Amino acid sequence: MEKQKLKELIAQMTLEEKAGLCSGADFWHTKAVERLGIPAVMVSDGPHGLRKQNEAADHLGVNDSIRAVCFPAGCATASSFSREAVELLGEAIGEECQAEGVSTVLGPAMNIKRSPLCGRNFEYYSEDPFLSTEIAGALVHGVQSKHVGTSPKHFMANNQEYHRMTSSSEMDERTMREIYLASFEGMVKKEKPWTIMNSYNKLNGTYLCENKEMLTDILRDEWGFDGYVMTDWGAMNDRVAALKAGCELEMPASSGITDAEIVAAVQDGTLDEDILDQACERILNIVYRFEENRDKEAVFDLEKDHETARKIEEECIVLLKNEGSILPLKKEAKAAFIGKYAEAPRYQGGGSSHINSFKVESALDAVRAWKTENVSYAKGFDDTKDETDEALFKEAVEAAKNADTAVIFAGLPDSFESEGYDRKHMGLPGCQNRLIEAVAEVQPNTVVVLHNGSPVEMPWIGQVKAVVEAYLGGQAVGGAVVNVLYGNVNPSGRLAETFPLRLEDTPCYLTYGGEHDKSVYSEGVFVGYRYYASKDMKVLFPFGYGLSYTTFEYSNLVLDQKEIKESTALKVSVDVTNTGTCAGKEVVQLYVSAKESAMKRPVRELRGFDKVELNPGETKTVTFTLDKRAFAYWSVEIHDWHVESGAYEIQIGKSAQEIVLTKLVQVESETVIPKVYSINSTMGEILADPKGKAIMEQAMGSITGGGPAQEMSAEAQDGSGAISNEMMAAMMEGMPLRQILSFVPGVKKEMLEQLIQALNS
Amino acid sequence: MEKQKLKELIAQMTLEEKAGLCSGADFWHTKAVERLGIPAVMVSDGPHGLRKQNEAADHLGVNDSIRAVCFPAGCATASSFSREAVELLGEAIGEECQAEGVSTVLGPAMNIKRSPLCGRNFEYYSEDPFLSTEIAGALVHGVQSKHVGTSPKHFMANNQEYHRMTSSSEMDERTMREIYLASFEGMVKKEKPWTIMNSYNKLNGTYLCENKEMLTDILRDEWGFDGYVMTDWGAMNDRVAALKAGCELEMPASSGITDAEIVAAVQDGTLDEDILDQACERILNIVYRFEENRDKEAVFDLEKDHETARKIEEECIVLLKNEGSILPLKKEAKAAFIGKYAEAPRYQGGGSSHINSFKVESALDAVRAWKTENVSYAKGFDDTKDETDEALFKEAVEAAKNADTAVIFAGLPDSFESEGYDRKHMGLPGCQNRLIEAVAEVQPNTVVVLHNGSPVEMPWIGQVKAVVEAYLGGQAVGGAVVNVLYGNVNPSGRLAETFPLRLEDTPCYLTYGGEHDKSVYSEGVFVGYRYYASKDMKVLFPFGYGLSYTTFEYSNLVLDQKEIKESTALKVSVDVTNTGTCAGKEVVQLYVSAKESAMKRPVRELRGFDKVELNPGETKTVTFTLDKRAFAYWSVEIHDWHVESGAYEIQIGKSAQEIVLTKLVQVESETVIPKVYSINSTMGEILADPKGKAIMEQAMGSITGGGPAQEMSAEAQDGSGAISNEMMAAMMEGMPLRQILSFVPGVKKEMLEQLIQALNS
Repeated sequence: MEKQKLKELIAQMTLEEKAGLCSGADFWHTKAVERLGIPAVMVSDGPHGLRKQNEAADHLGVNDSIRAVCFPAGCATASSFSREAVELLGEAIGEECQAEGVSTVLGPAMNIKRSPLCGRNFEYYSEDPFLSTEIAGALVHGVQSKHVGTSPKHFMANNQEYHRMTSSSEMDERTMREIYLASFEGMVKKEKPWTIMNSYNKLNGTYLCENKEMLTDILRDEWGFDGYVMTDWGAMNDRVAALKAGCELEMPASSGITDAEIVAAVQDGTLDEDILDQACERILNIVYRFEENRDKEAVFDLEKDHETARKIEEECIVLLKNEGSILPLKKEAKAAFIGKYAEAPRYQGGGSSHINSFKVESALDAVRAWKTENVSYAKGFDDTKDETDEALFKEAVEAAKNADTAVIFAGLPDSFESEGYDRKHMGLPGCQNRLIEAVAEVQPNTVVVLHNGSPVEMPWIGQVKAVVEAYLGGQAVGGAVVNVLYGNVNPSGRLAETFPLRLEDTPCYLTYGGEHDKSVYSEGVFVGYRYYASKDMKVLFPFGYGLSYTTFEYSNLVLDQKEIKESTALKVSVDVTNTGTCAGKEVVQLYVSAKESAMKRPVRELRGFDKVELNPGETKTVTFTLDKRAFAYWSVEIHDWHVESGAYEIQIGKSAQEIVLTKLVQVESETVIPKVYSINSTMGEILADPKGKAIMEQAMGSITGGGPAQEMSAEAQDGSGAISNEMMAAMMEGMPLRQILSFVPGVKKEMLEQLIQALNS
Repeated sequence: MEKQKLKELIAQMTLEEKAGLCSGADFWHTKAVERLGIPAVMVSDGPHGLRKQNEAADHLGVNDSIRAVCFPAGCATASSFSREAVELLGEAIGEECQAEGVSTVLGPAMNIKRSPLCGRNFEYYSEDPFLSTEIAGALVHGVQSKHVGTSPKHFMANNQEYHRMTSSSEMDERTMREIYLASFEGMVKKEKPWTIMNSYNKLNGTYLCENKEMLTDILRDEWGFDGYVMTDWGAMNDRVAALKAGCELEMPASSGITDAEIVAAVQDGTLDEDILDQACERILNIVYRFEENRDKEAVFDLEKDHETARKIEEECIVLLKNEGSILPLKKEAKAAFIGKYAEAPRYQGGGSSHINSFKVESALDAVRAWKTENVSYAKGFDDTKDETDEALFKEAVEAAKNADTAVIFAGLPDSFESEGYDRKHMGLPGCQNRLIEAVAEVQPNTVVVLHNGSPVEMPWIGQVKAVVEAYLGGQAVGGAVVNVLYGNVNPSGRLAETFPLRLEDTPCYLTYGGEHDKSVYSEGVFVGYRYYASKDMKVLFPFGYGLSYTTFEYSNLVLDQKEIKESTALKVSVDVTNTGTCAGKEVVQLYVSAKESAMKRPVRELRGFDKVELNPGETKTVTFTLDKRAFAYWSVEIHDWHVESGAYEIQIGKSAQEIVLTKLVQVESETVIPKVYSINSTMGEILADPKGKAIMEQAMGSITGGGPAQEMSAEAQDGSGAISNEMMAAMMEGMPLRQILSFVPGVKKEMLEQLIQALNS
């Protein structure tokens, strides 16, 4: 609806109707205003499938959701490193929403994976903000292409489940910008999501629902967001403050109590009615965007979407180990499928993203469809308790012995990871680890398939031949896994997160969860591979890692310029060749590394990626365009992105820890950070500035009649070697102007003041 | 002088005389006021020897200091873990000061070793504040027992040399209290140093010279310091502000410029003259404390103090490796002494602590005194440049071949560590590492003796049989090392700092040095072993580690109580037995580990240590008394030390990573941290409080007429497994009261307000 029409509509609404429009009618609907023809619209949980409550749902939404299709969860889809695959997922969900009359799907969930312990990591994409924002952008693009809204969440810094309703995420400005906001920024700027969902937690002491800096200054004014912000369910704190800050819709509602607070605030003048009108306009704009673009032809084709779910999962599966090319398996050989998840895969997590799948395709289902007798099955373990069932255990080991290959379907039980609470450790259940070790002992050809939403320790990694990471792969996961195991699909997923060797190695191990509802992000920007790579640590599997059934080689890295200014785009191209014997897809990763910086910067940061399909022998040229942002850090001096002049290395990597080609580019800054000299400016600082050097040299001549270095010393100097030349040089470099008073007799303060004036003029 | 007399004297001083008294007369003297008979007194650098400038020194102090005795540096003396040895050192220096008319020695330097890179670590004691404060206390006690003052420095948080004049050390309150202030606290409280020297740097943005919280609120009001504070040389920033904050003496002076500022400030009323009077009283009190207690008999006996220096170093040397008991060496066997430091040991560091040693005793000197022909010498390397001298190299390898044992005297050259700048890496010079490896290749019996002021990487550790850490051992180091090598002395030093495997492993690797003159201590309290042990990391050698030529066994750990209240002292005793064949000294270390805490606490913290001498077969009982502080952390809620109720493990360790005996004690808190409930208090918080539980249960009954758990959910619940029992329980625990409005219809805000009132009443 046109802006003018919306305004006219709002002008006809009563104060109470306007306040009411800004909170939910029930758990899943906005309010209608029947006398004005304003419709209610429905929102539904997501985003890896539709969790639409039955229309008959009561006000608390405790009834069943409709039967739907569960696509791979965020942990899996990010591993696809494929914008196309994720866009396809978005389109499928958008279509389903149109068919079901759902205006907005509540996702994608795209918080940064700060620790492998976060209970909700299975829904999130990555430890890297660039990958996260690109994948989220593809999903939003896909959904919104069907004229259905998204609600990227949880904005922002909601990186733990522990006390998420009250905990404050405490971080410095640079960390906030480079990591936690950056995860949202690219997606918002490029894809303009219809809505944004604010998170439960506080940021530096202020609840996100009432954080004006985040919801208005950054989200709208800087990034150009033009939709509305809704709370996570029950994330409202102070409703009037929230409305002022830019949070338009309270979900679900507070029995009218907070609506009345808004009415009162307008009446007593503490809330400008214009703010309320603006909120209504933002909400109605989106309501009508949906209503006016309904696709009456849309159908929710369960079977078709099941196929899509499998197709997507086939892009997501990451091959972590494949010793002696044990995979792909041959259909003629005898395989023992072992573990409950072969029959009943864990394919999704608990909480708001939980889908009522209309069917689930297990790996056993998939092989049984071939009517083969070469695959046996032994359950091996149950996952309701972490206890070894001796009978199942023996049966499994026996089955392994009698086959050519054992394929163990292991993973995390539901209770090990879920919305609402964090993981306690990074291990698989002990009973599964014991089973894997016992099987590997009797069967040299052992393959482990993992069903989990975040990294697990693999104490048995040296004893098994292959590991296939399926993540929480959606309801068609079994078919996708079997296609990978038997080579119908060449795996092409890459890890969107580091698999550390031990929980103790993780960047926030000593602080995660926080104290007294304060969670200090003291690792700063060193999250994920930024930490492991910068500290040159061994990990189990690095970010970006993943194997293929074929091999790829890189050559011919070309930068179109050797020197650029910060405003100039740099074009990078590199050739990738499939040097193996089967077709496959490679994920080309581009990292940038600042070679010299006054800042503490990660040794490398992902600034580009692309997935290319190559036939054996085929070569393709992959190109990237890098802009200022690819070289920048967030400067707290100018509160903006800043590029330092200097050398930067363009790195092409197979993972964050395996760089295969590099080339340097010189980047020249075009931004001068204004410098104000004071009595505490150091000699080094002044002399590094050409103007400062000229002024200083002249002044030093008149002050001392000679070089000051011989006469000044911070503590003392004598002839017996107490002060070396190195020490003198370092002390001179770090000496503030004020110390001239202590070490050079005859200098007056006025002389220094004149000097400073000259430096600042 | 009596307080009253001081006041009378000050009453006779002019404003200008008073302002003048509060800055130095020259580099090394306070000002005299001749007309009133107020004497000038001299201060001198230290603290591991007297660095007294010749009386003929010019105002900048660039002349030679007098010939004196260089004792082991702080890095070594802390390794003694012997209060007695360090006290002896203090007494010797005090005696020297009396003989030379020096009123105050400028030390000890006792900053925490936050990173092995700090250029001045060689002067500092430890990464552990308890050890640091105990060793510093012993030194202060020794010096002051001779009626000479000390000036413990650099107060505080001066943990890097890089930009120390302008950098701000940024840390939270708990870190400041538990680590950086704690290093000073025990020493100040127990030993009442005559003066304190404030550091150059800023703390959280305020220069230490003008930091009232540190210099007055904590140092004087909390800890009872009754001396005066002087600046480090040239560490004055704003003189009037500094005087108000509690910094009495500017050193050296600013040509009268800042004296005039004080006069002007008193005259224009911006500075209360009483503050100036008080500063004069504090300074004169110490001036007369020295003048009135002069020891006219004191002599500076160079040779006697040289012997003392050796005796102390013999307590400090740490035996790090001794494979196959290769040490002690036999005089009859042929030894090749290799490396420049055998002939010219590096025994002290550069800067204000640099002593003009009257003689230096090298290891070669010591063995040559025997007139033996069994020890050959090859220089092996020079240390002015990090380059392999092929001739020296070959000669050394040849010498090693022709001996029964090779002893390589390696270490850090002067330019590698010094006051004024930080180390660039943690390595020895490459030419020395190459030499060690080459020697070890031809000589299986290779011993390395190290002369260095802080940890070095040892890439060759697996190839050599023994490593002797001599640190910067003072001018008698050669004799002490030879006594250890040949078994005249059984080594008993223990590392006062962790030797990490790699620089990248250190807690502040990613942040050390800071950015733009801000150094954020983001590792918090996890400094040194608190980090390595809590993250269960492999290190080269842990804190507290050191070998002996004999063996010790521990038994019979006894706690006098199983349960204590926080105000009750706990007595701990443990038996140590010398189970070897020679006499030796063992350092018994007591650590405390909180087994359950709402805080993130290190897995253990040193709370007691004692050094005992035992003959073969002898057993001694070592006792410790633990008070509240041994169990406490610093609470930012009550701004005080706080003990949580719960179980604590008393651990007896041979190092911070080798605990040999443990026992639990239950400690009951006697301090109630006041709790104020609000609409954001969580259900878990309220239900954990017995009173809260009673009120809540009653209220929930009246609000919902039943249990709320079935009806409330944060985001949603349905019957398809979206919300598990675990998730529901976690969400209930973390749910703030305000959410009742969203999830329980019919609840009025007034009802919640009444509930909160009841909880707070």
